[in-house]
Amino acid sequence: MDTKTLAHEFTKLCQDGQFDEAGNRFWSEQVVSLEPMEGEMARAQGRKALEGKGQWWYANHEIHSTSTEGPYVHGDQFAVRFNMDITPKTGDTAGQRIQMTEVGLYTVKDGKITEERFFYGG
Amino acid sequence: MDTKTLAHEFTKLCQDGQFDEAGNRFWSEQVVSLEPMEGEMARAQGRKALEGKGQWWYANHEIHSTSTEGPYVHGDQFAVRFNMDITPKTGDTAGQRIQMTEVGLYTVKDGKITEERFFYGG
Repeated sequence: MDTKTLAHEFTKLCQDGQFDEAGNRFWSEQVVSLEPMEGEMARAQGRKALEGKGQWWYANHEIHSTSTEGPYVHGDQFAVRFNMDITPKTGDTAGQRIQMTEVGLYTVKDGKITEERFFYGG
Repeated sequence: MDTKTLAHEFTKLCQDGQFDEAGNRFWSEQVVSLEPMEGEMARAQGRKALEGKGQWWYANHEIHSTSTEGPYVHGDQFAVRFNMDITPKTGDTAGQRIQMTEVGLYTVKDGKITEERFFYGG
């Protein structure tokens, strides 16, 4: 599967709210996930670690709606934009409904996503 | 100037339609520009080459409107989304009004943009 085809299938799953399935289907075993912050959440590696990140996200946020735009492709990379309407359950903004937008930049090798790198708006 | 501040100033100039000024102010001397295609347009290097790319773009497209969204920041990189309503003057789609969306991924070093990499939708 070439990067453009993978990018469209991945994005379609996200648009349908199937974020877990998108990861299950396309993450490589040693996939790396990078967030623009310091500390232990900045880098996770391996499918189990990324599944844990996802579980943490769902446990700690009430999700009112999401939308996914893209993909935008260049060579073996593609970008997707996520819009989220959420209420955090924990942390400094607990209980405050907020709208967030972020960009995910994905790197593909041998038909699998080997890295996801998130860019934050605001 | 840190990457987040630069990203916001660059994006504001693009939102105001001042694309040339955004480049003038923030490109490094040896900035590299990468497009997702084969051939001589795939890679350009140096401010003069990028200025030439811009001149070629304006000469070959009628621009009805543009909008710029972002920035989205991660470390020394930021992403911006461009929406364009244009009519190409040359090539296979000459005379056809089209709407395009692309993502620009910018890498910053020492307060200057050292690389721009474009991702295409569709």
